[in-house]
Amino acid sequence: MKLADLPTPCLVLDRGILQRNLDAMARAVARHDVALRPHMKTAKSIDVAKLALNTPLARAQGITVSTLAEAEYFASHGILDQLYAVGITPQKLDQVAKLNDAGAEVKIITDDADVAAAIAAHATPPRTLIEVDCGEARGGIDPESPALLDIAARLGPALAGIMTHAGHSYSGRSLADMARIAEAERLGGVRAAERLRAAGFQCDIVSMGSSPTALYANSLDGITEVRAGVYMLGDLFQAEIGTHGHDDIAVTVLTSVIGKRPAERRILVDAGGLALSKDRSTEATPHDFGFGLVLDINGHRSLGTSLVKRANQEHGVIDLDPTIDAPSFHIGDKLRIAPNHVCMTAAAHDRYFVVDGSDDVIAMWPRVNGW
Amino acid sequence: MKLADLPTPCLVLDRGILQRNLDAMARAVARHDVALRPHMKTAKSIDVAKLALNTPLARAQGITVSTLAEAEYFASHGILDQLYAVGITPQKLDQVAKLNDAGAEVKIITDDADVAAAIAAHATPPRTLIEVDCGEARGGIDPESPALLDIAARLGPALAGIMTHAGHSYSGRSLADMARIAEAERLGGVRAAERLRAAGFQCDIVSMGSSPTALYANSLDGITEVRAGVYMLGDLFQAEIGTHGHDDIAVTVLTSVIGKRPAERRILVDAGGLALSKDRSTEATPHDFGFGLVLDINGHRSLGTSLVKRANQEHGVIDLDPTIDAPSFHIGDKLRIAPNHVCMTAAAHDRYFVVDGSDDVIAMWPRVNGW
Repeated sequence: MKLADLPTPCLVLDRGILQRNLDAMARAVARHDVALRPHMKTAKSIDVAKLALNTPLARAQGITVSTLAEAEYFASHGILDQLYAVGITPQKLDQVAKLNDAGAEVKIITDDADVAAAIAAHATPPRTLIEVDCGEARGGIDPESPALLDIAARLGPALAGIMTHAGHSYSGRSLADMARIAEAERLGGVRAAERLRAAGFQCDIVSMGSSPTALYANSLDGITEVRAGVYMLGDLFQAEIGTHGHDDIAVTVLTSVIGKRPAERRILVDAGGLALSKDRSTEATPHDFGFGLVLDINGHRSLGTSLVKRANQEHGVIDLDPTIDAPSFHIGDKLRIAPNHVCMTAAAHDRYFVVDGSDDVIAMWPRVNGW
Repeated sequence: MKLADLPTPCLVLDRGILQRNLDAMARAVARHDVALRPHMKTAKSIDVAKLALNTPLARAQGITVSTLAEAEYFASHGILDQLYAVGITPQKLDQVAKLNDAGAEVKIITDDADVAAAIAAHATPPRTLIEVDCGEARGGIDPESPALLDIAARLGPALAGIMTHAGHSYSGRSLADMARIAEAERLGGVRAAERLRAAGFQCDIVSMGSSPTALYANSLDGITEVRAGVYMLGDLFQAEIGTHGHDDIAVTVLTSVIGKRPAERRILVDAGGLALSKDRSTEATPHDFGFGLVLDINGHRSLGTSLVKRANQEHGVIDLDPTIDAPSFHIGDKLRIAPNHVCMTAAAHDRYFVVDGSDDVIAMWPRVNGW
């Protein structure tokens, strides 16, 4: 089957670019004495997870997940060593324990003393990392907080270590920014681990990571594992902030032309707000790509700066680059759209149509969406 | 089952509010001599479709759909009279024809002469409406365009009428705006129909609509049917532009508190950018609700102006109203979030948990997402 034969809109994944991205991360992580724990929140695919875990050099020993639906899916496919990296609630403990009772090793995170007590009181307490805030101001306690030792004490034997995430690395705009934020992330995790150990607690795991900081950290001393996910697929936002190049975007949305307005130098496509997402993260980067950058059916940037200017539910309105011949399009012509934020865009689609540098569709890989 | 027992995040639909919205639209349409063709792009549910079609006064004679996945789903549930209201491509004709060969009556739209010829040349041409632009500048030709008669001639016996959509009614900010845009929508459709008839073509259907214009049109003379969808469920954006009241939002996202930052008057919830969508449409309305307005578990507005300020993939960061006691929250507490744009938010979820004014879950209704 060829790309031109696919129903639109749909998600296209280039396996060659994916593998190149996996290799780049493996090389970056291999500079340090740490394991990689690939975050499957972006790809949500067992086929991608297998490639990520089998990439030479990566020392990948398990995965990170963002939902319990992912945890169940990957466990059912035999990936047992997992970290569920969103703050747990007491109500979700039974679901984790059920997976672990069946053989999985799903670890969880908390930054709350009451929850720590609930974990310890559970019949089969999952191994738990204490979430530490290294500057993002989202989840986690300050590494210097007195609560750290209180939570550790309440967790008792369930305590497995420290977890931190520099989500604010996305506000970096240079490799120097990334390296600086990576160091803050490292220091936050290591400081919390040191305090735990000084107080007599065991702290096996010190987990940090985001794609930018995993790629560009100068030192990971004291860290045992790094987590990263978006690096596998890439997107316009990550390209703009320097995580990877513009040619490293592995996922695009295949779409059909459904309308022409040559006088306004516009065309309509059947990839709208649902197929692309309403993410506008490139609004804050050097180049604002609207709701996505328009590529040709081969994934090449032959349409200049043409971008999706407006995104209604099932309609994308493309403003054509001044150099493009507006009347040359026909209804049914196929294009590909590079996404602003691939985690958001991919989540609208239940499968990838896989290519490898050509327009031959070589596989169809399912995704696990929802909760 | 109670709301408090549900896994989060998930979608909650209040059947009482839904029925009130269906009744309001039925009353509005009953002022005119037209049929209602409910647009299922928002609800994407057979259970909601049945209620919409069975609402007294509505004279509902079929549905509108926005994807061929919806067309197949609703046809499989016995709703045969459909309008697929997104410009068709020649490649999609076979899928429509297959449904129609099996007994459905899926009508399609086009604004293109080449596509009209492809429709006419198909073995079983679907009945086709010519899409006319009444001012939105998205799909459709000008009602005065010479292309109108050319497309009609090419369609031949497949020609079924005219379709227009005033999507720009969403830029209205008063009922007077809505009424004015509705009149432009009506005039566009009627003018195109008159030109067709004057040239000897038959024009059975003159279809217009959007929730604001269907509700607030002063006249629908010359129109045979109106389409509308978002009115069923409602959202913050529609409330802000005056389509309905703030108490008429039938769909909310149930979420759990997963983090506390009392010093910053913030809490974290497990409804992030995926569960809420990244839609920011209320940015352009009198009240900007961030990524959603926070309600209590009963759907009441007891948390003042608390709103989701930031939305990462699985984390929502809530800024609490100044009157709310920030330290009073516990991990696992449940809240509900009213969405900016319900079409986008609902699409991340594969089902509704249905309530009717209380916290008893009385049903689970599936949704048909994707393409």
